[in-house]
Amino acid sequence: MADKLGISRTAIWKHINGLRKMGYEIESHPHNGYRFVASTDLLVPEEITQSIGNCTIGKRISYHAEVTSTQDIASKLARDGAEEGTCVIAEKQTSGRGRKGRNWVSPFKDGIYISIILRPNLKPVHIIQIPLVAGVAMVKAIEQTTKLTPGIKWPNDIFIDGRKVAGILTEVNCDIDTVHYVILGIGININTDIDTLPEEVKGIATSLSQECGHNVSRAKFTGQLLIEMGKVYTEYVTNGFASLGKQWTDHNITLGSKVKVNDGQSEILGTAIEIDDDGFLIIETQDGQKQRIISADVSLQIKE
Amino acid sequence: MADKLGISRTAIWKHINGLRKMGYEIESHPHNGYRFVASTDLLVPEEITQSIGNCTIGKRISYHAEVTSTQDIASKLARDGAEEGTCVIAEKQTSGRGRKGRNWVSPFKDGIYISIILRPNLKPVHIIQIPLVAGVAMVKAIEQTTKLTPGIKWPNDIFIDGRKVAGILTEVNCDIDTVHYVILGIGININTDIDTLPEEVKGIATSLSQECGHNVSRAKFTGQLLIEMGKVYTEYVTNGFASLGKQWTDHNITLGSKVKVNDGQSEILGTAIEIDDDGFLIIETQDGQKQRIISADVSLQIKE
Repeated sequence: MADKLGISRTAIWKHINGLRKMGYEIESHPHNGYRFVASTDLLVPEEITQSIGNCTIGKRISYHAEVTSTQDIASKLARDGAEEGTCVIAEKQTSGRGRKGRNWVSPFKDGIYISIILRPNLKPVHIIQIPLVAGVAMVKAIEQTTKLTPGIKWPNDIFIDGRKVAGILTEVNCDIDTVHYVILGIGININTDIDTLPEEVKGIATSLSQECGHNVSRAKFTGQLLIEMGKVYTEYVTNGFASLGKQWTDHNITLGSKVKVNDGQSEILGTAIEIDDDGFLIIETQDGQKQRIISADVSLQIKE
Repeated sequence: MADKLGISRTAIWKHINGLRKMGYEIESHPHNGYRFVASTDLLVPEEITQSIGNCTIGKRISYHAEVTSTQDIASKLARDGAEEGTCVIAEKQTSGRGRKGRNWVSPFKDGIYISIILRPNLKPVHIIQIPLVAGVAMVKAIEQTTKLTPGIKWPNDIFIDGRKVAGILTEVNCDIDTVHYVILGIGININTDIDTLPEEVKGIATSLSQECGHNVSRAKFTGQLLIEMGKVYTEYVTNGFASLGKQWTDHNITLGSKVKVNDGQSEILGTAIEIDDDGFLIIETQDGQKQRIISADVSLQIKE
């Protein structure tokens, strides 16, 4: 091994020890050398990039064991000019963020915490399309790696069997008419033991392992997510949101439901009937009026 | 003086020299001490804050002799939690920015380059209101400090007699439905010798001194601008954009003009007829249709 790599046996030993510290299981034998026994389920770029080929999303990965929030790191990279598709991945977040300043619980190795830098040619009025596009990629990645049937709740949550398994955060830097960049934050509960979740999300959150009954490879899932995101995003920037409308509709759990829309000032009750070609939700209120929901909190009520 | 301030004569001398280096003119006399002769027209906070009282805009000023862009400094302050109304002021910008990545020529002490951190309770679809609000404050500040009659071109330029004297840049950090903060960038040509401007803006740009025939105090103007901005912004956050609609309309040069609207993809010809309660421009196209312009480049054509 030392001969092949052209480095000393001590150097080999140092690298092996480094890998062991990361969690890789490697046996050593005085005569036979080293033997690789088991991989770790860390999200180190080497574990992910081999599966994604030349996918535009994930070409560059900034990997961290622990961060405050992957959004913070990605924002800085974007301001410094990082190219579209650059991803920030962390094993743990100490200040993971959800929407509206909410906390996103992000314990070590339980979930996937990833921020993707996007630079779409987009007007600020249409930024709702970004979480919708990401939602399609996320349900596809879940379908490809498990036998589960996830659903998208407009605009940016992924549910399995009535419980939230993933969320999307869309942080935008824009002028009045031009989006400069988007930091798409994705948090997914992969192998989270739901009994360890904080009280306020118990009963409403779940994880892939909880739903599958066994652990799911985080590295494999992340690779699949980047592949699906690359495909869906390319379709989106090439042909516009309308071309993804059917895929979104096929996977959604909002249309046909009674919804309560809260825009921070007032509440509207109605039935979600469709999303239009711009991605806005159209609801029919109780008096039969159609209303276009630009963006707001949507509570799902009784399923019809 | 040393007795009164309780510091040594050498300390006094050091401070006097510091002030002289900044451009303040101070005579010294062996027996009579120091005599203040003339102020400098620097935008040091002490020159500005004395005139603005307890105005919410400018309570905190981050002052710099030279920066890449006041927007960069203000963005960092905003991310770190700086409070609403914090201003970044520079005497010179080496990479001053205009809209759409254009350059904003920012030579030492010629103009005013200021970025204001705002935290309005605003949805991203309505960010057009921010430059409109700032435009009203800017024309009022010009009217209060000169005898000129400035006009606002929708959405964010200030003109005097057909030439641009000031511009507004609105940099927004937002989620899909919530504006986190706005960095309002304002650039005004105050004592700019228009013969020194780059070729590409000659003939289309002007300065207050050019229009007045004499220099204008930058410090006094800045104080007035912050006062007007404080008043107009307070009115806006309290009563909404509609309450400023008349003031905007009274000062605008867009309504009634033939306009060419370019949204980057297509061009529409029409007549600007009004702005609605949300701040969007309504134009009447040649076939009599009314169209709402969300945001785009507007070229003024023949004035009717």
